[in-house]
Amino acid sequence: MWQTVCVIFVLKAGFNLIILMNSKIQVLFDGSVTSPLGFLAGAVYAGIKPKIHEALDLSLLYSEVTCRVAAVFTTNKVKAAPIILDRDKLEKGMGVRAVLINSGCANACTGTEGMQNAVISAELAAEFLGISADEVMVSSTGVIGMQLPVEKISEAIPQIALSRDGGHKLAKAIMTTDTRPKEYAVEVTGEDYCFIIGGAAKGSGMIHPNMATMLAYITTDAAVEGDFLKKALREVADATFNMVIVDGDTSTNDTLMILSSGKAGNRVINAESDLAEDFKSALYQVCLGLAKSIAADGEGATRLIEVVVTGALSESDARKAAITIAGSPLVKTAVHGNDPNWGRIIAAAGRSGIEMDTEKTDVYIGPMCLLKSGQPMPFERTIASSLLDQPEVMLKVDLNMGEGSASAWGCDLSAEYVAINAEYTT
Amino acid sequence: MWQTVCVIFVLKAGFNLIILMNSKIQVLFDGSVTSPLGFLAGAVYAGIKPKIHEALDLSLLYSEVTCRVAAVFTTNKVKAAPIILDRDKLEKGMGVRAVLINSGCANACTGTEGMQNAVISAELAAEFLGISADEVMVSSTGVIGMQLPVEKISEAIPQIALSRDGGHKLAKAIMTTDTRPKEYAVEVTGEDYCFIIGGAAKGSGMIHPNMATMLAYITTDAAVEGDFLKKALREVADATFNMVIVDGDTSTNDTLMILSSGKAGNRVINAESDLAEDFKSALYQVCLGLAKSIAADGEGATRLIEVVVTGALSESDARKAAITIAGSPLVKTAVHGNDPNWGRIIAAAGRSGIEMDTEKTDVYIGPMCLLKSGQPMPFERTIASSLLDQPEVMLKVDLNMGEGSASAWGCDLSAEYVAINAEYTT
Repeated sequence: MWQTVCVIFVLKAGFNLIILMNSKIQVLFDGSVTSPLGFLAGAVYAGIKPKIHEALDLSLLYSEVTCRVAAVFTTNKVKAAPIILDRDKLEKGMGVRAVLINSGCANACTGTEGMQNAVISAELAAEFLGISADEVMVSSTGVIGMQLPVEKISEAIPQIALSRDGGHKLAKAIMTTDTRPKEYAVEVTGEDYCFIIGGAAKGSGMIHPNMATMLAYITTDAAVEGDFLKKALREVADATFNMVIVDGDTSTNDTLMILSSGKAGNRVINAESDLAEDFKSALYQVCLGLAKSIAADGEGATRLIEVVVTGALSESDARKAAITIAGSPLVKTAVHGNDPNWGRIIAAAGRSGIEMDTEKTDVYIGPMCLLKSGQPMPFERTIASSLLDQPEVMLKVDLNMGEGSASAWGCDLSAEYVAINAEYTT
Repeated sequence: MWQTVCVIFVLKAGFNLIILMNSKIQVLFDGSVTSPLGFLAGAVYAGIKPKIHEALDLSLLYSEVTCRVAAVFTTNKVKAAPIILDRDKLEKGMGVRAVLINSGCANACTGTEGMQNAVISAELAAEFLGISADEVMVSSTGVIGMQLPVEKISEAIPQIALSRDGGHKLAKAIMTTDTRPKEYAVEVTGEDYCFIIGGAAKGSGMIHPNMATMLAYITTDAAVEGDFLKKALREVADATFNMVIVDGDTSTNDTLMILSSGKAGNRVINAESDLAEDFKSALYQVCLGLAKSIAADGEGATRLIEVVVTGALSESDARKAAITIAGSPLVKTAVHGNDPNWGRIIAAAGRSGIEMDTEKTDVYIGPMCLLKSGQPMPFERTIASSLLDQPEVMLKVDLNMGEGSASAWGCDLSAEYVAINAEYTT
């Protein structure tokens, strides 16, 4: 049941994270958001999105005990009703017992009625679970401007069967144009402790697409102090989910949430704890796994593109350049066409607003150097092309100016992306 | 030969430009960059780009007298050799007699050899014309990293036949994946003056695509004082060319240049001149005409999208929101699919970083209001859809917060864009 993974090297992120052969962290085979102790989940088809084979559109994540919680929400000025509701609950500092998630309707730009519907949904879930509505978070993803069908949700909630392996169902139920569920879990084992972090995420697109919404739910049975949980989530999100780009659009509903049940029985982890680095490393690994799955499964994607920028004057510069390259339509189409058109890579870096000097810059496709100190290198086009014709493509820019480095993840841009997103809303 | 156009309303730009029935400005039928007095142009096929039917790839714009000049270049940190050379000449404050332009090779990221080739090209053109190389500007557009074939240019220049109606040939020779030449000229007639402003531009893409380079050359026979010429060009560019977005990538070679010959014999126009507003209005009209042509002929485009944002707290906010909406892949694909998915429009505004309040925001497709004060309006989907199925589509967001307004122009995103840009460099 265990698949041992040796993480050889992870590019340093905001918190200078380098995992070298961290044998304490093991990827769980068949892991899910309910792998950590104390979590159950289930899902049903409530009729919110059109019925297709095995469709699920309403899921519930439940914890046997009240969890510490931290979350990161969309930076979009236009925020969906559930985002506003969840944020308010978080600000009150309440613990969380459950998360109700629907796909098929974003409940965004739905005015007063939309906010009422979000409140009602939380109350319906609370009633079913016999807990307080204050302890229920709600998430939505789907078409903007459509009102949430609360009657359907009311009828469907009692049909949800919660189980310890219900995480897989949840991962399916939150999908929209995702072609596959995204799950990842690791177990961290030390001399006198053992805890699990699990997660489920959905990426970009709707069956009747509206927004490229990113939803991710992380659970852990580790006992984690609230402030540290918040800080760790923010830092890890900046190096993982925030470095994923599919089409540059930011949803009104983006949500990343972590629940800590404390069921593992470890001593409480805080910033000073000797377990702090292990926890952050494991959280990073789970978030990285989910984030890369989102990039690889971007709408119409046929490849995962990893962009590594090194030698920047600052980490902020490196991040800007990496995300601009990964998001460039010209870079994305070139990769799609196996076109080793390195000019587009350096040009994207050049427009990202960072400090750079062409005469110092190196550009690589995989291990192959195409530009060295601003001078074009002779290269075998067929080999460069074949380096792009891979499920995972690595593009690298070394600015040779400083110590800042960062990675970003994206996908190629295919005609299929256009086809998916040019369809009618209904 | 004259086509009278009454410009009813032009959205105010940086300089608060409102043209109401300005009957002084007439669009020239069949106008070109050589419509103003004193300008000649010609073009040949030098063999820089692959030979296709009627291919031209080397053109020369020539003025009988030394011109005052102003220019705006790419903001990309990676600048092509001709950009660096032209900027140096401009900074020395020299007048200009000629511009040599090649398509098929960007002469960008070409190191020391590339800079030498740019210098040599200017010298070759100067020798042919019997003028100083200091008075020759050079422009390139095409593949990055390829060295400029100066031998071919050397052989081709003497074959260029300059003529007064050579502007049309120039407009064709600077094209890359453009499907049609872009030209616009107006004549401004007052009681005791008459001058012409003409222009040619190219938009996004290469036959073997590399970068979406924007090149635009404006000429006028009006005598314009140097500082005012610079200021007027900068302001007009901000409201026109800088509000056009095809794919968000910024070329290493973008160039907008204006040459003033003074051959019209008018009194010199400066900031205090009574002709100043007429000149700016006419320049705005020429630049707007060319900029809209670029948007409408974006790679793979089937529609011109005009985005109007009003009621912003500042003009800067309005500009940010308009360009973000016009550049959103989700908005562009929705328009392509005739999908009245207004959620994508407000969501793009929401992520643009501006101040906004959803509860105050209205969203329109053409004349149809789909969101009023943050509340979704019932609307006839087939009519909304038909409003998108037009060669020119208008999207409008009224933020209802202040007086800031702006327009941006873009195009839909089609599968053809991907096809064009996924082709091989060679």
